[in-house]
This record gives sequence, C-alpha cells and structure tokens, in this order.
Amino acid sequence: MCVVRKHYFINICTLSLVPDFPIYFFLLQMMDYNVPGGKLNRGLSVIDSYQLLQEGRELTEDEIFLASALGWCIEWLQAFFLVLDDIMDGSHTRRGQPCWFRLPKVGMIAVNDGVVLRNHIPRILRKHFREKPYYVDLLDLFNEVEFQTASGQMIDLITTIQGEKDLSKYSLSIHRRIVQYKTAYYSFYLSVACALLMSGEELENHIDVKNLLIEMGIYFQVQDDYLDCYGNPETIGKIGTDIEDFKCSWLVVKALELSNEEQKKILYENYGKADPENVAKVKALYKELDIEGAFADYESKSYEKLTSGIEGHPSKAVQAVLKSFLGKIYKRKK
Amino acid sequence: MCVVRKHYFINICTLSLVPDFPIYFFLLQMMDYNVPGGKLNRGLSVIDSYQLLQEGRELTEDEIFLASALGWCIEWLQAFFLVLDDIMDGSHTRRGQPCWFRLPKVGMIAVNDGVVLRNHIPRILRKHFREKPYYVDLLDLFNEVEFQTASGQMIDLITTIQGEKDLSKYSLSIHRRIVQYKTAYYSFYLSVACALLMSGEELENHIDVKNLLIEMGIYFQVQDDYLDCYGNPETIGKIGTDIEDFKCSWLVVKALELSNEEQKKILYENYGKADPENVAKVKALYKELDIEGAFADYESKSYEKLTSGIEGHPSKAVQAVLKSFLGKIYKRKK
Repeated sequence: MCVVRKHYFINICTLSLVPDFPIYFFLLQMMDYNVPGGKLNRGLSVIDSYQLLQEGRELTEDEIFLASALGWCIEWLQAFFLVLDDIMDGSHTRRGQPCWFRLPKVGMIAVNDGVVLRNHIPRILRKHFREKPYYVDLLDLFNEVEFQTASGQMIDLITTIQGEKDLSKYSLSIHRRIVQYKTAYYSFYLSVACALLMSGEELENHIDVKNLLIEMGIYFQVQDDYLDCYGNPETIGKIGTDIEDFKCSWLVVKALELSNEEQKKILYENYGKADPENVAKVKALYKELDIEGAFADYESKSYEKLTSGIEGHPSKAVQAVLKSFLGKIYKRKK
Repeated sequence: MCVVRKHYFINICTLSLVPDFPIYFFLLQMMDYNVPGGKLNRGLSVIDSYQLLQEGRELTEDEIFLASALGWCIEWLQAFFLVLDDIMDGSHTRRGQPCWFRLPKVGMIAVNDGVVLRNHIPRILRKHFREKPYYVDLLDLFNEVEFQTASGQMIDLITTIQGEKDLSKYSLSIHRRIVQYKTAYYSFYLSVACALLMSGEELENHIDVKNLLIEMGIYFQVQDDYLDCYGNPETIGKIGTDIEDFKCSWLVVKALELSNEEQKKILYENYGKADPENVAKVKALYKELDIEGAFADYESKSYEKLTSGIEGHPSKAVQAVLKSFLGKIYKRKK
C-alpha cells in the first residue's frame, strides 16, 4: 500500500511544470517533507466513499487514479494548513519531526512554501479534471472549503486572544462554530463531496449529507478534546496540554456551563497555566462536575441523532458512506 | 474618484457571507488596512484595457462594475502577497504605515489573514461571474498567476540565500526568471488577461500579448532596480537600499557580467554590507563600469523591441492596450 501511495504522490503532483529547474529539488524536498507523512485518512476516504457510492461495482484503474488524485488534493490542502498553523502557533514538532519552518535552512520562507503547496491543488485539478463536466464544481468546492477553514482558524485565533483576557468569551456555541469551520468542512465533508462530484452528483442536492458530516466532524473534535485530557497518552501518541495552553476545548466550555460562581472562579484562576498544581485543580473541578459523564451523555446522544439522520437518507449507497465514517469514529480511543 | 473606489471596495467584497458576526469587524478592519491603500494601478488597468478593447464604445454601468470587480481581485491578490512578503522579509512599513503583522494585536495571525485575503478572490469571482461563459477561465487564470508569483518568490528567496554565500549565483538569466515569475505575470499580464476574457477572447489565442506584457514587466523591474540606486529619493518616495540588502538587482548582475576578476573581487567584498563605505565602493565600481550607460542602452533597446512587437500585432485595439502600458512606464522617473 505504501508503494501505491508513494506512486500516486509522485504521479499526481505537477512538478514537471515548475518554471525553474534548480528549484525542482527544493520543491520536491519541501513537498516530500510536508505532504505524505500523515495518516492519509482524508485522502483515502475519497476512494472509500467513491467505491461505496458505486454500490459494489469494481472500479476501473482510471477511476481509482482520479479518486486518488482528489484524495491527494485534500492531503495537499492539509499540508498547506499545517505548515502555516505551526508557524502561527510557534509549534516545535509535527508528525514526529521538526516543523518545516523550524529547519535552519527554511525559517520564514515556510510561509511561501505553504502557499506553493496550496497552489498545487488547482494544478492537480487542471491536469487531471480539466475536461470533466464537474471541473468547475471541484474548483468551487476546494475554494469554498479553504475559505471556511481559514475563517475557522481566524475565529479560533481571535477567540483565544479574547479568552485569555476573559474566559467567559468561551462558550459551547463559539466552540461549535470554531470546530465546524476550522475542522469539519475539510476533514469530513470535503472527501465525500469529492466522491459525490466524481459520481456525477450535484452538491446542492446533498445539503443533508453535508449537515450530517459537519455534525460528525464536530463530534470527532469533541472526542479529540476529551482524549486530550482522559485518553491514554500511549494510545493517542501525545500528552495532552489543552488546559495549560488555554485551549477553547469542549471540556472547559462544558465546565463553564455547569459551574456555579465559585466553581467558575476556580476555572478563571487556574485554566491556561503551565504549573501542574493549577492543572490539577482544573482536573479536580472537571471531576466534581462529572465532565466525563457529560461527555458520555453527549457521545450517546450524538450517536443516536447521527444514526437516525443517516437512516432517514433515501439512498442506501449514501447511507453506507455515512455509516462507514461514523463506524470509524464512534467510541474511538485514539 | 476616491468615493467610487471605496464604493467598489465595499460592494465587491463578500463580507456578508462571513460565517460569524463577531468576526465581521476584524475582517473589515483587516481588509481596509491592507487592500485599498496602494496606487491601484493594476486594478485600474483592467478597466482601462477593457475600454480600449471596446474601441471607443461607451461602457455600460454593468461592464464598469464587472471590470472593477476584476480589478479589485488583482488588488486583493496583491494585498495577500504583500502581507506575507512583509512577514518573510521582516519589513517594518508598507504604504506609509506599519506592516500589518507589526501591529501588536496582529502578529503571526497575519499569516492566516493573508490566506483569508486570498480566499476573497474566488468569492468575488463566484458572486459576480458564476454565470459568465468565461468563469472557469477566470478561476484558471487567477490560480495560474498566483502559482507563478509564488514560484517567483520561491526562486528569489532561495537565490538570495545562495547568493549571500556566493555572489556568482546571481546572473542576468536568474534575475530575469525571478522578475518574470515574481512580478511580471501578476503586475502586467493579469489585468490585460482579465480584460480579454471579459471581451470574450480565448487567452490561448493571445500568447503574443502575454509575451509582450512579460517583457514590459521585466523592463519595468529593471527600471525599478535602476531607480533604487539612481532615482531621486524625493521623487520615488524612498531611499534605495538594494546594495545594502544584497538584492539580486539588475545593476549588480550587469556589473558582474561586465567585471574583470579584480572588479569582481570589489563586488564580492562590498556588496550586501550596511556600512556606507562598502556601499560607496560598489557605487564607484558601477560608475567605472558605466552601469548607467548600460541601463540607457538596455532601455532604448527594450523600447525599440517592444514597439516593433506591438506594431506587429494584427489588432489595433490590442495595440492600443499595449501602447498604453508602454507609454505609462517608458523613461519613468518614479
């Protein structure tokens, strides 16, 4: 499988069209460092979803190639966002290696590298989809989703600045809005939307599918917030620091909602501080408020709502796509 | 005119579609700070060029609006590049005010703001051109030009890193390539290409127009490099520092070309140093090599070549567009 992935990475990108040969080497290295190292969940979902939409018919080589090309476009989009996010957050590592901008020979040039990564999306689309009837819809889709993601990032950055001065700026509704825009569109909706377009569908006829995937994206992020505090570090591969980092996490907004004035005071005094004593006080309050129970409640209600939403969909093939997504994330431990 | 410009700025941008009301204020402020403060040459060129392509026919309100919308798209693209370039260059001021990322409340968030600025281009296009037969060509055009500009920026950044270690990495051909990609496509070709598309033309039938505009863009940048050293600071509005900043300027690559080994040594030892004594030595060498004469020679040859190229074009209307561009820049002093 890894060979196949690599094969697609090399074949689908459009390096041969780069204007300048000496730059070729840098570009290849930059892409290789930033694009293919993730789990590729988003990219692989395009192929899986397209397969399910074809209801068991065996895909042709060409179909697999095109679905992979769209999958890689999502991975390129992801790489673009991660390179820039790491600069803005001042992060140190990403996918087990130093962030791209941390490399001594890179530095702030990484901002432009991010833009170059992003520019490969329309190049890939043009190279492989120019003659397809849904070409313009693909361009519109990627533009729209990129805008939604950048808007979510903007809301998140501004909210965090305000929240650091006044924790009451954090709320369930703002948490939901950040997650919806920053994560759900590009992580959940985009791959299914690509598969629908390849299947000849009009996206405006699938607003219900979009809404269900957005709900799943939000549920996924709430799980992420939960695992940051309660997951097994060995399983999730990192030690959570959302409390220390003043993150607008589902846990803290739920805690704010459930707190009386005295409990709120504890949060205000201890949230966002690196000292383990402060962190312990926040965690003790979470226990007092039974945030774990609140999460279990949220999880079962979300699952129920999503399941009944999916079962209400007229197409069995679309149901299969949505169920496949839900099955992958329900009660996940990592 | 200023009211009209403001009017278009407000009407053409697509703020009403932003997902989150509290963010509206930040977004408006960010755009207002970064988009409309330039000379608007690129944007206004779309209207001028479109008018010339219509051979004297009076434009309708709708045509003026649409040409302005495309003009604003170019200004948005420019704002996106400037916000990010200033971060990468560590600049301090831009258009007479602090660079956006230098504002205390902004900082590194400016990276995402740049992306949000860029995202407004496809939003403007979609809002006003979705039903036009040339909509997909507009999307392709802006994607292509953005990629070319980012590639030029990449070549420039990498060349400067290499040049600082070894000045011989700078050459006329690399200077030409940087300028072509980083500046000429978006500053010269893009506005005419927009006007051609609005006029119902296919861009692939106008490769000659593209080539002439690229040549003009290169000539324009060579002038810029010349004025940085020999222009009147009061007229050009700044004191040039290309020598101090180790810029891959036309002057230094021409000097390298004309130098013997001894003269090259002077360049190697003094170029890119802030000390006025080093700068003076570089300038003395420029005088010795008669770089001013070499520039005058380049200028007259470029003008001749461009003029005969323009006069060879079959369409009088297209000739008028190209002559208008050339007339604006020939022997400019600022």
